Amino acid sequence: MIRRGFQVAVRLGQHRALFGGPQVLPRLNPTSAFGSSTDSLVSRFCPEKTDLKDYALPNASWCPDMLNLYQEFLEKTKTDGWIKLPSFKSNRDHIQGLKLPSGLAVASDKSDWRIFTRCIPVEGQGYEYVIFFHPSEKKSICLFQPGPYLEGAPGFAHGGSLAAMMDETFSKTAYLAGEGLFTVSLNIRFKNLIPVGSLAVLNVHVEKIEDQKLYMSCIAQSRDQQTVYAKCSGIFLQLQLEEESPQ
Amino acid sequence: MIRRGFQVAVRLGQHRALFGGPQVLPRLNPTSAFGSSTDSLVSRFCPEKTDLKDYALPNASWCPDMLNLYQEFLEKTKTDGWIKLPSFKSNRDHIQGLKLPSGLAVASDKSDWRIFTRCIPVEGQGYEYVIFFHPSEKKSICLFQPGPYLEGAPGFAHGGSLAAMMDETFSKTAYLAGEGLFTVSLNIRFKNLIPVGSLAVLNVHVEKIEDQKLYMSCIAQSRDQQTVYAKCSGIFLQLQLEEESPQ
Repeated sequence: MIRRGFQVAVRLGQHRALFGGPQVLPRLNPTSAFGSSTDSLVSRFCPEKTDLKDYALPNASWCPDMLNLYQEFLEKTKTDGWIKLPSFKSNRDHIQGLKLPSGLAVASDKSDWRIFTRCIPVEGQGYEYVIFFHPSEKKSICLFQPGPYLEGAPGFAHGGSLAAMMDETFSKTAYLAGEGLFTVSLNIRFKNLIPVGSLAVLNVHVEKIEDQKLYMSCIAQSRDQQTVYAKCSGIFLQLQLEEESPQ
Repeated sequence: MIRRGFQVAVRLGQHRALFGGPQVLPRLNPTSAFGSSTDSLVSRFCPEKTDLKDYALPNASWCPDMLNLYQEFLEKTKTDGWIKLPSFKSNRDHIQGLKLPSGLAVASDKSDWRIFTRCIPVEGQGYEYVIFFHPSEKKSICLFQPGPYLEGAPGFAHGGSLAAMMDETFSKTAYLAGEGLFTVSLNIRFKNLIPVGSLAVLNVHVEKIEDQKLYMSCIAQSRDQQTVYAKCSGIFLQLQLEEESPQ
């Protein structure tokens, strides 16, 4: 379900933290949001050569379902236009050379920052996931295997861990599909619990882009699609990142 | 915003995982959900003597705002009916001696299980939080300080980390206020980003209980209430846990 007429962009401007005080949100050029720039966003996001560790690669903790589907989608990157997204330790690595809008001062990077969904470094204990993105169809798939540190009810993934995984998959998809940067809303309906250690497949689609907002949907289910774990709709705010000026 | 007429309870019964196949959900006695049994739930949940580590105690990473407000609410536990909830490593510790509904087999406890919101053991790096609960007013307050491992946009908490914190505060409140066990839905509107290392105060209320569901609301804001970080409504399904039979 997508809520129409959402007024958050206006209300955001009335608060002080997110955009540093009232201001007119920058207008995006639809061509730059959807067109050749998707390619440049993707090529920036997926550097061919980097020293950064990619956490979205198979390891010994992945269950057979996750490994098989990973291989299946890896094949599709060669023929069907899918792209495997790298996953670095921090979003700071993903947006290197770009700066956040004014008012969002970036704290010193002396701390050991980690993106939330890569907060647990031990293989298999926390988040195991990989996202594949399809630029022309504006959709993504996320293979997600929750570990025992993501527990809610005994033996099952915490609802909040799935909510965060959905938000993160939305986030990467929104950024690459249309420079969507900030979560405006999430609307999640939980249907079944995900057993720890098993695979959940998240299918994400960009439904529409309107008034600088991306409207997205997600369904999380078992590989055989017989069990729906949750459905979610999300709205993201578009905002262009600027090049950092040389120091 | 609370969505009325939500049909998840029925739909849950049509799926196989959460309740192990179609079945009639057990009817709760409203007196047992709200009456003397709240006391017994609380006393079970907050054991006076335990060897379990309570993670909801001040440590050197807590910012002054968090420490001050913690002390303030600790005083209110003596006079105003508030209860400080302990926070153990796993929900298995919180529901010791109780068993989940049939169909929800609990996996072996040989693994190192952790509740998601206590997944990062290093003080100050991940989730720092403490929940106070007010039984007669059916409300809670959660003091939440996100660390640098909970990052989304550089320097700010990931939206998913706040979603999980809201879900967890709902969850503990729902259980103690009316044996609410499972998240049916979360509807979150994000307003402003939370700077890493700062305090967010989550105010949770049980709005009503109807058809075995608890309808709850949450607002997350700065201590001075000048900045709203997010608003959320959540629905939880009531389900009584049974005593485990002696082995």
